[in-house]
Amino acid sequence: MNTFGRLLRLTTFGESHGKAMGGILDGMPPGVEINGDIIRHHLERRRPGSGEGVSKRREEDKVEILSGLTSDNITLGTPIGFIIPNTDSRSEDYDAYEGKFRLNHADYTYYKKYGLHDFRGGGRASARETVSWVVAGSIVRQWLWVSRIAIDAKYIPTLDAAQAARNGDSVGGIVNCKITGVPAGLGEPVFDKLHSRLAAAMTGINAVKAFEYGDGTRSARMKGSESADKFRIPYDPSTPFSSNHSGGVAGGISNGMQINFNVYFKPAPTIMQPMETIDTEGNPCVIPPKGRHDACVAIRAVPVVESMAALVIGDMLRLNQSYIPFEPYEE
Amino acid sequence: MNTFGRLLRLTTFGESHGKAMGGILDGMPPGVEINGDIIRHHLERRRPGSGEGVSKRREEDKVEILSGLTSDNITLGTPIGFIIPNTDSRSEDYDAYEGKFRLNHADYTYYKKYGLHDFRGGGRASARETVSWVVAGSIVRQWLWVSRIAIDAKYIPTLDAAQAARNGDSVGGIVNCKITGVPAGLGEPVFDKLHSRLAAAMTGINAVKAFEYGDGTRSARMKGSESADKFRIPYDPSTPFSSNHSGGVAGGISNGMQINFNVYFKPAPTIMQPMETIDTEGNPCVIPPKGRHDACVAIRAVPVVESMAALVIGDMLRLNQSYIPFEPYEE
Amino acid sequence: MNTFGRLLRLTTFGESHGKAMGGILDGMPPGVEINGDIIRHHLERRRPGSGEGVSKRREEDKVEILSGLTSDNITLGTPIGFIIPNTDSRSEDYDAYEGKFRLNHADYTYYKKYGLHDFRGGGRASARETVSWVVAGSIVRQWLWVSRIAIDAKYIPTLDAAQAARNGDSVGGIVNCKITGVPAGLGEPVFDKLHSRLAAAMTGINAVKAFEYGDGTRSARMKGSESADKFRIPYDPSTPFSSNHSGGVAGGISNGMQINFNVYFKPAPTIMQPMETIDTEGNPCVIPPKGRHDACVAIRAVPVVESMAALVIGDMLRLNQSYIPFEPYEE
Amino acid sequence: MNTFGRLLRLTTFGESHGKAMGGILDGMPPGVEINGDIIRHHLERRRPGSGEGVSKRREEDKVEILSGLTSDNITLGTPIGFIIPNTDSRSEDYDAYEGKFRLNHADYTYYKKYGLHDFRGGGRASARETVSWVVAGSIVRQWLWVSRIAIDAKYIPTLDAAQAARNGDSVGGIVNCKITGVPAGLGEPVFDKLHSRLAAAMTGINAVKAFEYGDGTRSARMKGSESADKFRIPYDPSTPFSSNHSGGVAGGISNGMQINFNVYFKPAPTIMQPMETIDTEGNPCVIPPKGRHDACVAIRAVPVVESMAALVIGDMLRLNQSYIPFEPYEE
Repeated sequence: MNTFGRLLRLTTFGESHGKAMGGILDGMPPGVEINGDIIRHHLERRRPGSGEGVSKRREEDKVEILSGLTSDNITLGTPIGFIIPNTDSRSEDYDAYEGKFRLNHADYTYYKKYGLHDFRGGGRASARETVSWVVAGSIVRQWLWVSRIAIDAKYIPTLDAAQAARNGDSVGGIVNCKITGVPAGLGEPVFDKLHSRLAAAMTGINAVKAFEYGDGTRSARMKGSESADKFRIPYDPSTPFSSNHSGGVAGGISNGMQINFNVYFKPAPTIMQPMETIDTEGNPCVIPPKGRHDACVAIRAVPVVESMAALVIGDMLRLNQSYIPFEPYEE
Repeated sequence: MNTFGRLLRLTTFGESHGKAMGGILDGMPPGVEINGDIIRHHLERRRPGSGEGVSKRREEDKVEILSGLTSDNITLGTPIGFIIPNTDSRSEDYDAYEGKFRLNHADYTYYKKYGLHDFRGGGRASARETVSWVVAGSIVRQWLWVSRIAIDAKYIPTLDAAQAARNGDSVGGIVNCKITGVPAGLGEPVFDKLHSRLAAAMTGINAVKAFEYGDGTRSARMKGSESADKFRIPYDPSTPFSSNHSGGVAGGISNGMQINFNVYFKPAPTIMQPMETIDTEGNPCVIPPKGRHDACVAIRAVPVVESMAALVIGDMLRLNQSYIPFEPYEE
Repeated sequence: MNTFGRLLRLTTFGESHGKAMGGILDGMPPGVEINGDIIRHHLERRRPGSGEGVSKRREEDKVEILSGLTSDNITLGTPIGFIIPNTDSRSEDYDAYEGKFRLNHADYTYYKKYGLHDFRGGGRASARETVSWVVAGSIVRQWLWVSRIAIDAKYIPTLDAAQAARNGDSVGGIVNCKITGVPAGLGEPVFDKLHSRLAAAMTGINAVKAFEYGDGTRSARMKGSESADKFRIPYDPSTPFSSNHSGGVAGGISNGMQINFNVYFKPAPTIMQPMETIDTEGNPCVIPPKGRHDACVAIRAVPVVESMAALVIGDMLRLNQSYIPFEPYEE
Repeated sequence: MNTFGRLLRLTTFGESHGKAMGGILDGMPPGVEINGDIIRHHLERRRPGSGEGVSKRREEDKVEILSGLTSDNITLGTPIGFIIPNTDSRSEDYDAYEGKFRLNHADYTYYKKYGLHDFRGGGRASARETVSWVVAGSIVRQWLWVSRIAIDAKYIPTLDAAQAARNGDSVGGIVNCKITGVPAGLGEPVFDKLHSRLAAAMTGINAVKAFEYGDGTRSARMKGSESADKFRIPYDPSTPFSSNHSGGVAGGISNGMQINFNVYFKPAPTIMQPMETIDTEGNPCVIPPKGRHDACVAIRAVPVVESMAALVIGDMLRLNQSYIPFEPYEE
């Protein structure tokens, strides 16, 4: 189940220690001009070393688009295949891990699920996977911009990441995301509500432990008299309500207000100290400390949050389009 | 998109003011005995009037199962069709609403999406819809029990619902859910992670504004050194870890520990006082107060949370089953 | 997998000997007026006794629509749930079959698949199932007519069905179907080609053994110089080609010409004589002759072919709609 | 919709004139050893120049597998990404085609669907696409062999392909496919019947105009007394029936007999003579003859038929596996 979306669909492949990551973005509408610099810009935002409290700089991620565009970089409506070579995989680093389950990683669960596991790296569970999500999201955003839909996320610091890094520790964090320009009507009741799809997308990002939209967790401690959004009088369809407790979604359908949600990240697994764990035989063992990690994964996750939001909104746009009463083509 | 699940699939229909609610549960394994009393028990837990601070008692919900069972109530592996008649729809109540958008409801967004709306009731956006979810979930649970998987949710009060009810107001609430007996290995990376599917299911429930699992939102304020689960030594596969920060899921796959998540509900729309709103022409208007509502929707949502969790776990069981290396049938 | 379609989706339930057949048609666009007489008309065409060489007259099929329509029978865009009670199931007839596999039926394969089987009737394998397909198709056709798309099938006799009936035997037959008014552009490369979806739909009908479109099987014995369709000069987009070897589909996408295909039906299982078979223990046994059957199943299948074609075309219309470049809604 | 399958899923990308073809095969069970020579063998069978009456020899197709295997070529259960570079695309050949619709190709329908088209080649409609299908199918077959399932297709000549080639013409042809070793029970009623999935898969292959299984089109001219398969007495589960009119499938579910079907191909478009057509403005124009083509596309399609059959059978195996009653893992 490495496919996300119904009509606008991203399917991905790649292990962190393998030759390449990559994906196929299927369902982009035809006629959209794609600027490679925009993809590179967002890949750069996601890259290790692009912020304080993140792991040291590595090689730039280079994406190669293999299909789906004209020679002028216009989408054809056909699937866009792409790969990002893994230039820095260094699987030799992982020899010490062979047959040992790293704590707070997915080694144990993958091994239990599939009956075998490639201990050379994080495999599909590595956050390396999100490089493909950013490529796809950065393509989709360029379509959304044509419709004046903009997606903007930001990191909300909690604990001091730089301080934690100095101690060989890590911290959690929050990413807030706002989406503007979404028309009323997106979202498919009752099982593909707009916020449900966002929740699935966001909680699928590595290290995410919670999702909330609008008033979110605070809602549980509010009264009904405090939480209703009232219509602006006179009615203004571009900003129909005078407050936004709902976070832009009512009954699972966008209401024309700004969409607003938060994503909560746990700290990255700390691996700067020897790790007491077990091996595949169930015997206790120790994994020696590894040289680098992100002090706060939420920082680099900002463009990942934006990219997954773009995939959701684009999919919902296509789904919503499909309802408009059909008229035979005029020639 | 009124279908939930990939192999174990629930498809539903029904408007709150129409003749009946109903659904088709497709993909139940054959050979499971279904006890109607268990379905009725959970319907009763969900029913208005079954707790303090909820709306007044109405007729019992009667489910009629139309297919998929032998005469001895054993599942055949074929789809289970069922209906629940709407005996208490009272659409005449709604005449005052014709063409007017109720605040904090989905009238406006449905109207914007579909271009027409049936103002006789909440339509598909009504929490009445969840009666079908409870029927389906109560069937699935009986299969899960055979495998010793148990799902148990409870309401965590926040504000005083009874007090709010007396003031014609309403309050939000939290539902905590624990799932025990889930083997390690459930969940499909990378886009159908177990907790992502739970997040989608739970946020699809009416009035839900947030989902968290394991350490949840607190994770964002924790250090890596505080949040890692360590293996129990000696290794015990039935309870492999000595703590459960992860909430039973690592890398999107169950790890053999208890699954633990919280669902946050906003207060029900307060409609015990005149509501200043607009009509479909954009003109201001007033909707008179309506006679009954739930002071806290989270109370009746407990069996709904359990039911949707059952649908997710059942689907993931079937997905995971399908990996086991194939052997030709021996005759 | 009792769901057909991607955006316009029919999910069905029901065993031939159970209380009711039924289904949920999800994804109908809003605003289409539905006339119940048209549904009844097509149900009547499908009904036993409605033609020569078919089994004796039974009660009329009565459909009850439970959701998805306004009080004026306008589609809401929400799922349309419906049931058709089984008034004539007579499961007592089937006592002689308990534990015995009828020849040329699906008893054996269902038993091998599910490990249990309800020998009271044909279960899901009965052609009774197609009553739900005709209900759904008869709704969808009313939408297609608005777009001037018409679907018209006819039975092409092969052997003499009436003569076979007198001998207690049965015959196969062919149904030809023509679809007019389909604009160029329907069909989703590369795995949801228009004709592939038609092939899947048609071969899913009981007793169908072959599907061909355009020149069909004859193509295999033609030369390239004989089989190319040439553009009409001057170009006329409403009938772009001067011949129709392609059957209205090129590269899996409709080309604006009439869509034309044939469906081949095998004879109904003959059961007017004692049937030598085995039981679930593998022991030889005999099933006594049964009193009625269709001499030619293709005759009653005509509206079923049309209905499944309507579901395919409607689904493809919605899929194709979803590509049209998005414009923000003007208010 | 460039994805085929439900649990075993192939998603593809690539235009014939682009940099590479490729795909992602998702859902292979873990633990299967993959031999690259077998993939190369089937690619060689599909390659131009590998038989009489096919176009002249080009470079070998080289597949690069980028993920999903251990260093020992054992499947991990994760998606298998692969690419096949287009070394022989020669898009300069196509300059003469700019803006002109080739007859009997999909240029016109793609242009009508997407509103733009890349006239440098056949794009997604080119049979070049099937190179990815053969890669995927050749991987899946190695899993099926472990379960003793074998797929074997052969070309059945109709007209003389070599003679046609000498005249600059082309001929149609038939491919017969037999699948042995399939246990009873595969196929998902009622809309994913085994033969319906095969029909969809086969008619999706370029130039296919008809599909039949078992008695096929002949069934329409048979009597019921001639077409029933009788159980072998004494019962032998490995070959349960004494004839195979059904082609190995009853009620959409495999019955343990050999699966047997035919696929009918039309002749390749003849392009050895000037082609009178129109351009995107609707004006008449001429396309000059092109230097090479297949005299009979059915010859090279044999491994494509086998590959798509493997994808269907593998998917149905996983679907069927998922029913087996769940037992908690023993440790």
